[in-house]
Amino acid sequence: MDQALAAANTAWILAATGLVALMVPGLALFYGGMVSVRNTLNMMMMTFGAFAVVGVLWVLFGYSTVFGNSLGDAGLLGDPLEYLGLGQLLEAPAEPGLPPALFAAFQMLFAGITVALISGAVADRLKFGAWMVFTAIWLTLVYFPVAHWVFAFDSSDGSVIGGWIANTLGAVDFAGGTAVHINAGIAALALILVLGKRHNFTNPPRPHSLPLTMLGAGILLFGWLGFNGGSALAASNSASVVVLNTLAASCAGICAWLLVERIRTGHSTTLGAASGLIAALVAITPACGAVSPIGALVIGAAAGAVCCVAISLKFKLGYDDALDVVGIHLVGGVLGTLLIGFLATEAAPNGVAGLFYGGGLGLLGKQTVAVLAVLAYSFAVTWLIAKGMDKVTGLRVHEDVERDGLDVAMHGESAYSVEAPELGGAVVTTDADDVAVAAEAITEKAATEKVT
Amino acid sequence: MDQALAAANTAWILAATGLVALMVPGLALFYGGMVSVRNTLNMMMMTFGAFAVVGVLWVLFGYSTVFGNSLGDAGLLGDPLEYLGLGQLLEAPAEPGLPPALFAAFQMLFAGITVALISGAVADRLKFGAWMVFTAIWLTLVYFPVAHWVFAFDSSDGSVIGGWIANTLGAVDFAGGTAVHINAGIAALALILVLGKRHNFTNPPRPHSLPLTMLGAGILLFGWLGFNGGSALAASNSASVVVLNTLAASCAGICAWLLVERIRTGHSTTLGAASGLIAALVAITPACGAVSPIGALVIGAAAGAVCCVAISLKFKLGYDDALDVVGIHLVGGVLGTLLIGFLATEAAPNGVAGLFYGGGLGLLGKQTVAVLAVLAYSFAVTWLIAKGMDKVTGLRVHEDVERDGLDVAMHGESAYSVEAPELGGAVVTTDADDVAVAAEAITEKAATEKVT
Amino acid sequence: MDQALAAANTAWILAATGLVALMVPGLALFYGGMVSVRNTLNMMMMTFGAFAVVGVLWVLFGYSTVFGNSLGDAGLLGDPLEYLGLGQLLEAPAEPGLPPALFAAFQMLFAGITVALISGAVADRLKFGAWMVFTAIWLTLVYFPVAHWVFAFDSSDGSVIGGWIANTLGAVDFAGGTAVHINAGIAALALILVLGKRHNFTNPPRPHSLPLTMLGAGILLFGWLGFNGGSALAASNSASVVVLNTLAASCAGICAWLLVERIRTGHSTTLGAASGLIAALVAITPACGAVSPIGALVIGAAAGAVCCVAISLKFKLGYDDALDVVGIHLVGGVLGTLLIGFLATEAAPNGVAGLFYGGGLGLLGKQTVAVLAVLAYSFAVTWLIAKGMDKVTGLRVHEDVERDGLDVAMHGESAYSVEAPELGGAVVTTDADDVAVAAEAITEKAATEKVT
Repeated sequence: MDQALAAANTAWILAATGLVALMVPGLALFYGGMVSVRNTLNMMMMTFGAFAVVGVLWVLFGYSTVFGNSLGDAGLLGDPLEYLGLGQLLEAPAEPGLPPALFAAFQMLFAGITVALISGAVADRLKFGAWMVFTAIWLTLVYFPVAHWVFAFDSSDGSVIGGWIANTLGAVDFAGGTAVHINAGIAALALILVLGKRHNFTNPPRPHSLPLTMLGAGILLFGWLGFNGGSALAASNSASVVVLNTLAASCAGICAWLLVERIRTGHSTTLGAASGLIAALVAITPACGAVSPIGALVIGAAAGAVCCVAISLKFKLGYDDALDVVGIHLVGGVLGTLLIGFLATEAAPNGVAGLFYGGGLGLLGKQTVAVLAVLAYSFAVTWLIAKGMDKVTGLRVHEDVERDGLDVAMHGESAYSVEAPELGGAVVTTDADDVAVAAEAITEKAATEKVT
Repeated sequence: MDQALAAANTAWILAATGLVALMVPGLALFYGGMVSVRNTLNMMMMTFGAFAVVGVLWVLFGYSTVFGNSLGDAGLLGDPLEYLGLGQLLEAPAEPGLPPALFAAFQMLFAGITVALISGAVADRLKFGAWMVFTAIWLTLVYFPVAHWVFAFDSSDGSVIGGWIANTLGAVDFAGGTAVHINAGIAALALILVLGKRHNFTNPPRPHSLPLTMLGAGILLFGWLGFNGGSALAASNSASVVVLNTLAASCAGICAWLLVERIRTGHSTTLGAASGLIAALVAITPACGAVSPIGALVIGAAAGAVCCVAISLKFKLGYDDALDVVGIHLVGGVLGTLLIGFLATEAAPNGVAGLFYGGGLGLLGKQTVAVLAVLAYSFAVTWLIAKGMDKVTGLRVHEDVERDGLDVAMHGESAYSVEAPELGGAVVTTDADDVAVAAEAITEKAATEKVT
Repeated sequence: MDQALAAANTAWILAATGLVALMVPGLALFYGGMVSVRNTLNMMMMTFGAFAVVGVLWVLFGYSTVFGNSLGDAGLLGDPLEYLGLGQLLEAPAEPGLPPALFAAFQMLFAGITVALISGAVADRLKFGAWMVFTAIWLTLVYFPVAHWVFAFDSSDGSVIGGWIANTLGAVDFAGGTAVHINAGIAALALILVLGKRHNFTNPPRPHSLPLTMLGAGILLFGWLGFNGGSALAASNSASVVVLNTLAASCAGICAWLLVERIRTGHSTTLGAASGLIAALVAITPACGAVSPIGALVIGAAAGAVCCVAISLKFKLGYDDALDVVGIHLVGGVLGTLLIGFLATEAAPNGVAGLFYGGGLGLLGKQTVAVLAVLAYSFAVTWLIAKGMDKVTGLRVHEDVERDGLDVAMHGESAYSVEAPELGGAVVTTDADDVAVAAEAITEKAATEKVT
């Protein structure tokens, strides 16, 4: 590769790294807006905290564990000592190419986002300290191996051996349908099965701020263009097709969810628009390099419609997936990864054909194996981690804390504070909860008086 | 063009597409913050909904209608069948160049933003379903043709024929002063003339959250750098000048609006800062490649000052342009497009001279023709669409819905929900409206007691 | 440099300019969320207002004063007339390279952000008009010279002479630890010493919206990747290392602050996470090109821990640094700039060695001189400006305005407005203050009744 072409690719991946970095506050808002006003900060802190812990571990040994030469050439785990501390990444590559330091930065954010996705399922009841510890353990025992399987490609000269899903199996996963979304989704399920339901599971609080959730969803769309488009690792036609497909799927996902919702309930909600958008983004993530724009519309619409129905499963089956991580990331991730087996077209960047494009059942088989492997490994190990932590330190906050909200108990703060200018000479401060309590008292009183 | 140079251009347009995508939540917030708390979600949904509908139609036939070969070489409309479904865009260009899939993604967002701009004018009274249908029809009958006129350039070898404004007339419109801003602004006017005024037009509710509006304006600035800078379609000196001019105009626009406001009312408001910023961005959009940085300061300042005055016209003339789409996008767009005729300098990327730089009246004439053509076509067709829809399905919500707010009626949600921790054992939920009602009751009671 | 390589660099700096532009609303939110609901808009307006004034002056003479040929080759100040109005920047460079218009746009935002940083210290008591005037004077007398010292490099052929710190002294400051953060931090100290304390300094209002502050911090992280990474002025390995180091430091900063806080108070707060993030970003700014990823972790952690302690100094020493600009930007900036003297490694892009990497005391000495020079000059001149303005026009709002909040008095607006649907037939509007007052009255009444 010539120097200038390498620089052009570097320019795009630098920008894409920026885009993905904005997913940190984006996800924090998306989740934070959906919970009650008394758990908002805790929700946001789980994303920021995960990002922080992940970044430190990533520099220390994480990158090496994912992208180091496969231990025993087995394709299961990278060598954690090969790039310990990342001092080796300071130098430019010997041949012009993408700087390894940049690839490490870009992939650091993938790890951070994946862990943070899980937090939506455990909203309102997990100790913050336990979350930080869980992040470190889960990352090490689950994310690093699975990311090695999926994201570590053999070097073209055979000197570096990567993961088994990417190389031996040869399943298609452009930007992390398996390693990111199925992985986070099934881990969320395992964790909440151990953690148990919220006390108000059947009648959960309404989102305290839908505008923040909508903003978060919009920021996630923006970041996702970097997430998917950057996964091409080049400023190429592939990246361009990926971006077009990602946008096309997003639009179809919103339309499909709003339509299904309208038919089922008579309303098209903002929460539905945000959810349809994210469901479509999840489903197109593995598939964005494998399908045509029409294929992207189909995948986006399928994800929007299927996930819209899937999120109500939790009430039937009785697992408390608070913010629908299972319903959207697990279901959408499986859907997108499998649909590649049907909709992949050789004309797209991945260059493989699915069932509907004359490709036979082979690809669908590979996709299924990849899905099942990640599902089984991630569920089992996460469940063991959760059980172990539950025994040793406990996972769940005290029921009083759960009732009163985690923000004050865990973080000593509340999300909003309204300060009244003056009352009888003294400046007084009230926070949102007090206002609500007072207002409720009044409403009730007014109601009583009306009755009387 | 060599491969590496093409990749460098691709790197910038990939990033620029990301920037423009963030305008979706940016615009949703900008408008959403300005309306009352009972119409916030509906306002945001009009932007997200437009984005979604546009993306689907764009893939199906929109791109083709805008950038397909001109039907009958007439320069009026592209061939809607040429790129049906966009499957043809999967391949890299034969000669190194910008991937067509990327250009399609970038321009998809232009279409989405343009439609969404209109929504600000119809705030608080348009049915959501009608908005979604209007989006599809207006896009097809108005945006696609006008975008063809302005954005579709003849290919250099003459094999592809583009639109008449860009080629036959040769008016200068770098990033969409006519096709985007004048088009949306005049369409907004036509639509509200059919739709009628809000019941509280003369005493509209105050913006429910100016911080969200300010954030939205800031995000729009960010996105606009991609919108204008990306319109160079290259990582070039032209894109660089465009970015500098866009920033310069923005700053001057804020200063001018705040100054005019200060003189007229004694206050410099945040809504003024946000409005001055957007007015300047609108006016520099067509001109950003045609003027010097000093010219950009002049255009930005002119837009800030003129639009600050123009937005009060609605009260004199009696059209209910709720969030000043006409006052800012129509007036700012016309201003910027015409000022090119005076301030264009041959030293700038467009390489043409206006009246003040020795260029004579020719350019001003062309600019005027372009403005009038878009004004006339867009107004007439939009008015017919609106009238037709009003007859067939109705455009306006019931007056009770208008009074109570569209969020609950249209979307079954309210923007904010404050949950009180406990009141006599039961956990109760109150939403913002209830709090306000209660507080109002108290305030009134307190006032009565004071009187007593 | 060949054309394509120049275009690749241009692609990245175009994107980086976008990233830095988003710091404008990011900083406005970060600060705006931290103040009371009655000063929110004023706080946000100080950032937007500074951005606007700076942009205009930058085009007129600012860029020239910073990057013009050093007057008398003294390295103290650029020639303010050389690039007056920036008309000279329209042309592409003679040799392929970064377009000067783009460099001017990128650096315009540095100037704007630097001034805006100061505003956090003067929250809740500075006249808005005085702030706008201060911005213009401070920029001209302090920022432009200091930026010339630090950012203006001699041209390689010796035809252009730059600033003394960058060239004669040869201190290392990759992206502005001295010119941006120390400069803003010490200026903030000088300004608040003249301005005096808030009436409620010892018992300041709580942040009115921590979600907005967290979002602001996240946006700042995003922008900072452009700020630091873009300072490489190329899509290079250097930019890549810088981005990796910036992320690594950020993560370590959050972890360190949360840990220290947890030990000291028992809580890990969101305000702590946001502050640790920003402190780390400040400290890594000068050092991001000089250290290894492990060095970045050390600097980030040091900044998080030290600044967490430093922000309580204001209560001991009695200066009212409202939002901790001194505690974070001054302390973090000094820390990062000096730590380069210890932690710099020759393997990093800057290619110099600090004390711990066999480099001796030389580098530490240079860093110290740079720090002291900026501290002394910026403090002295800022103090004189503040004293002068205080005499001539007055800096501080009337104490009634301070008590009631600046938003209504300065801008004629309040941040939030909650509109009650209906009360006895009439639509009434309440704003947040009224709600709080009413709620407080109720709470008090309820308390009294309980007592009774």
